[in-house]
Amino acid sequence: MNACIVAVGSELLTPLRMDTNSLRITERLNEIGFTVRYKAVVGDALDDLARAFESLLPTVDLLVCTGGLGPTDDDLTRDAIARVTQRPLEFHEDIFERIRDRFARRNLVMPEINRRQAMVPRGADVLPNRNGTAPGLWLEHEGTPIVMLPGPPREMIPMLEAVIAERLVERSGGARLYRRVLRITGRTESDVDSVAQPVYGQWRSGPIPIETTILAVLGQIELHLSATAADRASADAALDRAVHELEQALGQSVYSTDGRPLEAVVGELLRSAAWTIAAAESCTGGLLTSRLTDVPGSSDYVEASAVCYSNRAKVEWLGVDAGLIDEHGAVSEPVARAMAERIKVRAHTNVGIGITGIAGPGGGTPEKPVGTVAIAVATPAATNVRTYQFIGGREQVKFQATQAAMNMLRLMMLP
Amino acid sequence: MNACIVAVGSELLTPLRMDTNSLRITERLNEIGFTVRYKAVVGDALDDLARAFESLLPTVDLLVCTGGLGPTDDDLTRDAIARVTQRPLEFHEDIFERIRDRFARRNLVMPEINRRQAMVPRGADVLPNRNGTAPGLWLEHEGTPIVMLPGPPREMIPMLEAVIAERLVERSGGARLYRRVLRITGRTESDVDSVAQPVYGQWRSGPIPIETTILAVLGQIELHLSATAADRASADAALDRAVHELEQALGQSVYSTDGRPLEAVVGELLRSAAWTIAAAESCTGGLLTSRLTDVPGSSDYVEASAVCYSNRAKVEWLGVDAGLIDEHGAVSEPVARAMAERIKVRAHTNVGIGITGIAGPGGGTPEKPVGTVAIAVATPAATNVRTYQFIGGREQVKFQATQAAMNMLRLMMLP
Repeated sequence: MNACIVAVGSELLTPLRMDTNSLRITERLNEIGFTVRYKAVVGDALDDLARAFESLLPTVDLLVCTGGLGPTDDDLTRDAIARVTQRPLEFHEDIFERIRDRFARRNLVMPEINRRQAMVPRGADVLPNRNGTAPGLWLEHEGTPIVMLPGPPREMIPMLEAVIAERLVERSGGARLYRRVLRITGRTESDVDSVAQPVYGQWRSGPIPIETTILAVLGQIELHLSATAADRASADAALDRAVHELEQALGQSVYSTDGRPLEAVVGELLRSAAWTIAAAESCTGGLLTSRLTDVPGSSDYVEASAVCYSNRAKVEWLGVDAGLIDEHGAVSEPVARAMAERIKVRAHTNVGIGITGIAGPGGGTPEKPVGTVAIAVATPAATNVRTYQFIGGREQVKFQATQAAMNMLRLMMLP
Repeated sequence: MNACIVAVGSELLTPLRMDTNSLRITERLNEIGFTVRYKAVVGDALDDLARAFESLLPTVDLLVCTGGLGPTDDDLTRDAIARVTQRPLEFHEDIFERIRDRFARRNLVMPEINRRQAMVPRGADVLPNRNGTAPGLWLEHEGTPIVMLPGPPREMIPMLEAVIAERLVERSGGARLYRRVLRITGRTESDVDSVAQPVYGQWRSGPIPIETTILAVLGQIELHLSATAADRASADAALDRAVHELEQALGQSVYSTDGRPLEAVVGELLRSAAWTIAAAESCTGGLLTSRLTDVPGSSDYVEASAVCYSNRAKVEWLGVDAGLIDEHGAVSEPVARAMAERIKVRAHTNVGIGITGIAGPGGGTPEKPVGTVAIAVATPAATNVRTYQFIGGREQVKFQATQAAMNMLRLMMLP
């Protein structure tokens, strides 16, 4: 079952506001078996609204719109739906009374313009609004339900829940959408796809077809799997099998299949091993430790870190040999190794991480261009060191360096 | 001149992701005189994409789409545009070479699927991509430009800027939208609005009317001013006057009027004073130093920081008196003060900042609930200490604490 969502309001076409209602609506529709095929944002203009509704209605099984139900003359959802469905707008005395009562209860006189909110396309059902004056509307047009919800979330959400429970669940035909997300780091999008495609390419024809989307995000690749099934048990079985097949194919580069970010996965490994961690960060400026401490309860394993931005701090605080910096440069594997091993000693931890690099935009050289980052991870068993070449601006380089450092530690801690 | 923006990608039709590219594109199009009339999000399905392009193209003067230019077979923007404009897709050897070179420079072999990215609808111009493999495309169809941009912002934004400068500016007509953003911290939204409203309320009737929007963002309030004018000089004059009036009314709580984030404003103050800075961070876990070092050139004034997550680190690294922690607790003004003053000595800097608090979700007590953060700022002249009570989750508390710490320093450094 396909749905589309239309957000109505000229403010949603400025750089300052965005339609966030559709995320909540999508989540709830997915859960009862509707797939959102299309989203649109349309301004408060009758022709634009009518054109959008007209082109979308024949293509979907459900149209949900939000906004444009207010009292002012730029609230045009009612008018546009009436035009497209060729129904007259009719005045509903009972809605009018309810709105007037609402004002009266707050000792206010209803402005005349609120009369507009009592206009209803012929044949539409009124959806009561507990938290505002704008009534919602339900209209079936050539078999397709049109649900008109108000824009403010505190009015929209309760009405959405009611319309789902009372009307939409029975139309969803049973099958619902279930999801999984695999997160991968340390590989390129095309590399992941070339490995994963032969695997997920087979799922489209299975008894429970699984849709797969690959998504490159900074410092990681995500594989989104979704399956539509009549019951949770068979969806779970199909998705679990699919996740397992992808994990087999992609190996240890898959770091989570349950939505956890890398810092939570690494935190869990540290907690299980009863290990503590400290970092000596140069170019990442504290971002690694900040990410590690974004995880609730991380004080159990994060002991301390040193942000050694200057060479003096590297020498004085960590006891890195100044000669090492002179010989190899501050951005070098020997210095990263010394930082990792020294911070481990200084902070009395099991793990030490050293990161030194050139975040840019300045500071690059032909041999060590912007984006060069040397990372060392010292555990009780070994110290691994690697030099990366990241692309992107300053903040992107910083983030990717923290991602790479955590992934090096993760791989060293896997059984 | 009317534009529409189409974001392509099935992931943007899930509850997990939203199209944020269109905000940036809208802002820039507005500035050169285009009004965005319509936004759409369409999944990776050829029929859906073609239907959307087909219905939108005749209604606008410009169509911008983002995403769907990647190498995988669910990247279908090229194919859909080719179908709708009835042009064959042609293989471009030079694009292919550039993509292969890009892989080669990173010592990678180009996967065969990247060949798709060298396919171009006949007659389209290629927009070079400095930051990725996906080339952008420009195609004029029946007089309407179609601009195809990649989805990842770091690839999209430079290409957008280039296409605006090289092609779109000359097509936009007359009146343009000019903007200013005032950023304010340390005050509530309703407080800012009650002070600002009497000021901006008068501007709507001026010769160049100024629209004002107030926006509450985490840790700050923004006032967005916009004016439509035929020439930059008169828009600038009106907006500069408006900004000046608001600054008079709001005083030192306005920290920037030119888009700079707080870390850049504080960095400029440090640079002007030729002061260096170090921080001792507990609950913020390095986030303050990471934000300070997000500013290019910050190595001129950021010396070093200590993330002292454990009490042991506070005592051993900073030399904070263990008795002070026992007496007042780790989250207390005396401990924050000691952290700020000790890190200043330990790192040989002019400024020291100490932050200790309870980021949550655990660790709160009736006297010191989650969100309690003590912050101290030590300069050569004085040490200021204050306890804040922030709301929100762990990451929100961390961010607000860094915002408050930087603002304390800013206010101490203002003439």
